Amino acid sequence: MENKRNLTMLCDFYELTMANGYYKCGRGDEISYFDIFFRSVPDGGGYAIAAGLEQIIDYIRDLRFDDEDIEYLRSKGIFDEEFLTYLRGFKFTGDMWAVPEGTVIFPNEPVITVRAPAVEAQFIETFMLLMFNHQSLIATKANRIVRAAEGRSISEFGSRRAHSADAAILGARAAYIGGVAATACTITDEMYGVPATGTMAHSWVQMFDSEYEAFRTYCEIYPDSATLLVDTYNVLKSGIPNAIRAFRDVLVPKGIKKCAIRLDSGDITYLSKRARKMLDDAGFDYCKIVVSNSLDEYLIRDMIRQGAKVDAFGVGERLITSTSSPVFGGVYKLAAVEKDGEVVPKIKISENVTKITNPHFKRVYRLYSNETGKAEADLITVYDEKINENEPIEIFDPDYTWKRKTLENVTVRPLLVDIFKNGELVYDVPSLDDVRTYCASEVATMWDEVRRFDNPHNYYVDLSQKLWDIKQSLISKSR
Amino acid sequence: MENKRNLTMLCDFYELTMANGYYKCGRGDEISYFDIFFRSVPDGGGYAIAAGLEQIIDYIRDLRFDDEDIEYLRSKGIFDEEFLTYLRGFKFTGDMWAVPEGTVIFPNEPVITVRAPAVEAQFIETFMLLMFNHQSLIATKANRIVRAAEGRSISEFGSRRAHSADAAILGARAAYIGGVAATACTITDEMYGVPATGTMAHSWVQMFDSEYEAFRTYCEIYPDSATLLVDTYNVLKSGIPNAIRAFRDVLVPKGIKKCAIRLDSGDITYLSKRARKMLDDAGFDYCKIVVSNSLDEYLIRDMIRQGAKVDAFGVGERLITSTSSPVFGGVYKLAAVEKDGEVVPKIKISENVTKITNPHFKRVYRLYSNETGKAEADLITVYDEKINENEPIEIFDPDYTWKRKTLENVTVRPLLVDIFKNGELVYDVPSLDDVRTYCASEVATMWDEVRRFDNPHNYYVDLSQKLWDIKQSLISKSR
Repeated sequence: MENKRNLTMLCDFYELTMANGYYKCGRGDEISYFDIFFRSVPDGGGYAIAAGLEQIIDYIRDLRFDDEDIEYLRSKGIFDEEFLTYLRGFKFTGDMWAVPEGTVIFPNEPVITVRAPAVEAQFIETFMLLMFNHQSLIATKANRIVRAAEGRSISEFGSRRAHSADAAILGARAAYIGGVAATACTITDEMYGVPATGTMAHSWVQMFDSEYEAFRTYCEIYPDSATLLVDTYNVLKSGIPNAIRAFRDVLVPKGIKKCAIRLDSGDITYLSKRARKMLDDAGFDYCKIVVSNSLDEYLIRDMIRQGAKVDAFGVGERLITSTSSPVFGGVYKLAAVEKDGEVVPKIKISENVTKITNPHFKRVYRLYSNETGKAEADLITVYDEKINENEPIEIFDPDYTWKRKTLENVTVRPLLVDIFKNGELVYDVPSLDDVRTYCASEVATMWDEVRRFDNPHNYYVDLSQKLWDIKQSLISKSR
Repeated sequence: MENKRNLTMLCDFYELTMANGYYKCGRGDEISYFDIFFRSVPDGGGYAIAAGLEQIIDYIRDLRFDDEDIEYLRSKGIFDEEFLTYLRGFKFTGDMWAVPEGTVIFPNEPVITVRAPAVEAQFIETFMLLMFNHQSLIATKANRIVRAAEGRSISEFGSRRAHSADAAILGARAAYIGGVAATACTITDEMYGVPATGTMAHSWVQMFDSEYEAFRTYCEIYPDSATLLVDTYNVLKSGIPNAIRAFRDVLVPKGIKKCAIRLDSGDITYLSKRARKMLDDAGFDYCKIVVSNSLDEYLIRDMIRQGAKVDAFGVGERLITSTSSPVFGGVYKLAAVEKDGEVVPKIKISENVTKITNPHFKRVYRLYSNETGKAEADLITVYDEKINENEPIEIFDPDYTWKRKTLENVTVRPLLVDIFKNGELVYDVPSLDDVRTYCASEVATMWDEVRRFDNPHNYYVDLSQKLWDIKQSLISKSR
């Protein structure tokens, strides 16, 4: 595959008008600090999973305005020639900190912080956001679905309903981070090593003169991976009897004890129980039952509660589009600028109180109880504060400041790690399998109350006293 | 931009297992017919807009398995070497018919029909579906939003919340087909000529020592396109007064009477009325008011009803993800095969009655009243039927067959046009502007009852008597 693309121009047009503006008024080189953070967890969940960093890194390293880009910009008639000349040599020279992919993240804490000349920091906004938002959305949804399945395996089946090619390809990647076992999307296996699986569509069954012939032929060609789709005509009267016959005629003589059926329509809970009994009675208690058909975490939970006999789930549109909550609302906000080497905090006030930003160049720490190993709270501080885990740490709710809690015997872990330093990548991008393993270990540090699907416990994300004071004084000053 | 990608491997893995299977059992060359159709309109709307055909055409023309692809497939250990050799020379040699992009379409009618050797017809399923589904989803949503705005202009602002890069790029393209006037997505302008626009983010305002300075600087740099974002601190107390001052200080002396403000938070209906009055009182009755902030067709309709003073809307996440209905459910189903030169219809029965397919190689006609110019019904026929528009045409409901209606004085228009013939493109791909104009003219042929947002009239999509009879006999035979 030759899949190198120049996506430099995938930016909101205002990134360019602002960049040209900063350049023209001599502010292009002013060092600024921006944070990516998000405001609420999709589906009302208790936490989200960060994803998309690898693609953000690739994008930043590949940034280049080619001839066609410059020609296009010139044609708009509003950009200075000097600025266009500057863009020809444009590259990212700043610093970046980010939470690793697979990290459990919460609203209002910085998950990526950029420190760079204003033109550069502004320009990369759109692409970073869309990549972080999309993959975090799908990783978060996948993690919900995986948890609902209580150890049964989940395969991602949604390419055909994805929002175009990248959504299929990278959606499958993000779903793998969130814990799915496999995907139907072949190119995601080729590009990222997410195991691709699949056997047959209804068309295979229809193409033959009989369902039995279709099944027998498939078993002959793929004796080691025969998953037969049994609902083309009638599951109980035709599909399962024909599957049993094909297994018996082709696999049993070869001594193969690995096979499966797939149900893709009808009342799956009911059909799976009937199917299980028919298969067991025929001696195929080792035959697995795979089901699909517009599933999500709620349906899977209900099916399991009702005793469905399912070994594996294929989840399509409701995972790949996160149907019940298809937007991840990450934003990119100016937090500070440098004046004469000093970091000057900046705030955005809003008519909507929840849209007031946390100002300043910040750090984020996660506090783990040494007794339980569970995460107790996240603490956002000003960049130059030190946290001493050997002393009691008092945290407080940033809205209801009388709600206070003192944590002792905790381990403090900085969440943001160095990604770029002066434009150079200083981060070892982990393998996707390592990201997936890390994600599972991250989720394991969350209390059950935070992992709940509905009305989860509100995990504490608090500000240090110093940061809280600075924020209040900026709010007061602006009124 | 060098944006050529090899997306051949963007297919569900089962397309490959089936292709290898057909090849091995000697059925690879059997001519088969597949239809793309969909089952329900997103958001409960009365119709959808077809989009994505241009990208499907590009994909089919570019199909090629390169060395890396073959190597990857070999590594899976289940594909025959002979099949892999065949894939090296793989190309699409079949026929395709499709409705042009921008066509108004309805559930259960073929919108793309493929006739090709089984291996080829099966292989292209995933990509065609995802491209058709995504762009039709966004074009349909955009058309709803555009109608809600009652002539006010809509800009697409959603890149940062799109499901990755293609969803931003092609989503903006599809939104343009559906009627939006512009996009914030720069690369979609560069690639497809959708006008890109944009001015400033909150960060621009924050970057300066005062809001006024930020506004004045912007007006100086872009005197002909100054849209000032007035909600960084306080819309009524600070944003609008500062905007007025900047317009007065910079634009008025130049005699420029083109300017705008943008509201992005708070109670927009209220703020827009107050803003309008403040601007008018200051002599800026020509200043436009642009609004954004999680809008969709429902909110826009309500704002207009409540008298909001808005000239243009920027619509982000709820358009680019079609938040309220983020899945377009197009499917690809086998409809027929050829045996000894005869077309043999095929059907898929299902436990879910609505999932039973319309069999056979089919044509679709739209019947327009010559009196009103409005579309009255669509009629699906077997491929070899003729419709005589000079004679009365009786149509009937395929479920409640006693519901019959005779149409007279109609013009009959075939909806499916020739795209590929023996693998050769025989279609002049129209310009995007022509597609957009065509889409608007298509929508104009729909009755208001069909265009309604909620509980629209059910437009008739009927089967010819011959097709209905064949379908019934296939259903009976399968029981």
